[in-house]
Amino acid sequence: MYTRTVTKLSKLSTNEIEQFLNSFDTVLTDCDGVLWLDNNVIDKANLVMNKLREQGKRIFYITNNSTKLRDEFLKKTSKLGFDCVKDEVISASYLVADYLKNIGFNKKAYIVGSTGISQELDLVGIKHTGVGPDVQTSIPELLQTTKLDPDVGAVIVGFDEHISFPKLCKAGSYLKDPNCLFIATNTDEQFPSNTDFVVPGTGVAVRAVQTCAGREPFVLGKPYTYICNALIKEYGINPKRTLMIGDRCNTDILLGTRCGFQTMLVLTGVTTLNEVLQWKESENVEENELVPDVYLDKLGDLLQYLN
Amino acid sequence: MYTRTVTKLSKLSTNEIEQFLNSFDTVLTDCDGVLWLDNNVIDKANLVMNKLREQGKRIFYITNNSTKLRDEFLKKTSKLGFDCVKDEVISASYLVADYLKNIGFNKKAYIVGSTGISQELDLVGIKHTGVGPDVQTSIPELLQTTKLDPDVGAVIVGFDEHISFPKLCKAGSYLKDPNCLFIATNTDEQFPSNTDFVVPGTGVAVRAVQTCAGREPFVLGKPYTYICNALIKEYGINPKRTLMIGDRCNTDILLGTRCGFQTMLVLTGVTTLNEVLQWKESENVEENELVPDVYLDKLGDLLQYLN
Repeated sequence: MYTRTVTKLSKLSTNEIEQFLNSFDTVLTDCDGVLWLDNNVIDKANLVMNKLREQGKRIFYITNNSTKLRDEFLKKTSKLGFDCVKDEVISASYLVADYLKNIGFNKKAYIVGSTGISQELDLVGIKHTGVGPDVQTSIPELLQTTKLDPDVGAVIVGFDEHISFPKLCKAGSYLKDPNCLFIATNTDEQFPSNTDFVVPGTGVAVRAVQTCAGREPFVLGKPYTYICNALIKEYGINPKRTLMIGDRCNTDILLGTRCGFQTMLVLTGVTTLNEVLQWKESENVEENELVPDVYLDKLGDLLQYLN
Repeated sequence: MYTRTVTKLSKLSTNEIEQFLNSFDTVLTDCDGVLWLDNNVIDKANLVMNKLREQGKRIFYITNNSTKLRDEFLKKTSKLGFDCVKDEVISASYLVADYLKNIGFNKKAYIVGSTGISQELDLVGIKHTGVGPDVQTSIPELLQTTKLDPDVGAVIVGFDEHISFPKLCKAGSYLKDPNCLFIATNTDEQFPSNTDFVVPGTGVAVRAVQTCAGREPFVLGKPYTYICNALIKEYGINPKRTLMIGDRCNTDILLGTRCGFQTMLVLTGVTTLNEVLQWKESENVEENELVPDVYLDKLGDLLQYLN
């Protein structure tokens, strides 16, 4: 049951479902596309999460979104009816601050990102150069007027709607120094969107900086495994008894596979069942890693088994 | 002599040099770093090019720079003392216009780039959406107010100092349509720079659009071989009797290797001799392809053999 077989949970026997529910004591869940879409809770997702918590499961809300403070996420979860405390929220911007604090970083950070990152840094006392739009000048003027700050010891790239040539130039220039850290919150290529538009994700800025810097970033968000190490170190979670829930296989489910979690896909977000079935049959190991253990049409379908 | 042996031209015998000079009748040369730096001609490079031309060699100035019209390049070559006519200038922006004209493209182009591209398109009567800074708004407002133009049938990415989130969003959105062409002028990661700064090259915008679009571009500039096919088709050049001169192995020399040209590196620009010697010893075939047939400290050193 816990091998890569793409089982629909509802197809299991009552005994097997009970066995599955008893096989984990920690639940990590993605947010957008699993729990809510924009500002609307996805049918009964809040009731499921609250019930799992009530039954003693340890819950963590894991998001690659780097634009909000943990406190802001907390407000959203509360407003949408999720019982949740701050320690249960693990956002990519929080991970950046937590990581830099843990390694004793004492220089200044140059941010290509938003207040989600700068304010998390403020909370742990890490200096930074600020966020928001940069001044747009001609390139000769940019090179003449810009002073690189010698205190900068890290470039952090997250989601930045003010991405610009001056920012890319500065980020690349700081990264010429091999001692300057290069940290990315995540590499998601697009935001989920039901419109005609492609909404560029953080990965777009990350690849841009990476290209001009000629260096690879250290990525903290899903599907990179730093998050797992942090949860083991700070909260003592046991990967084998952990369930990862997500709507996106190349972040959520891949994280689970890489960390040895059990994995559950819900079909209310990015990944479709057809994609999963193709990856399952693929001879490419990297595609096999995207296949979840079980799936549900929507998280709310779990509720009936929790009562 | 024409195998990958990294020979300094001046180390050859008079006979061998004469043999070398008689072995090609077409000369392709890169510009920045070979002929000039900023607005200064590199020692005697103009005299060498003029002498080669005088001796009946067919000359083409090949540049990945997409920010200027061919006429503007021509002004620069003339000002710096190079005898040159418009047909001898092959810029990445010209290649885009030439390519679209040749395939009979009759829709509109969305440009992430500069007037170098838009004006070359104007010259061949191809419609486009214009260049310059886009309006910076919040993302919800961007998605609400933007109308995608149904006539757009190609996204062109070149060098754009006004790269922004709205532009990336629009480029990615147009490219959702698999029939929309995705064309890049070139993928240079950085501009050559003697300052403390990294000046992001066109490749940065290309990788950014590529990431959010989830598609690979068709690249027209060096080291991609489209340029060779165009020169064969339009000017009947013979690759075996063509010499490619450059200062950058991963564009100029690689183009030459891929196209079967002879290749000459000058050490007045990006690539150093140490790098070449490492690539020569490398067991990685892709690195071997970066090794030129011959090299010179500077192009001007060729002059003594031309008299």
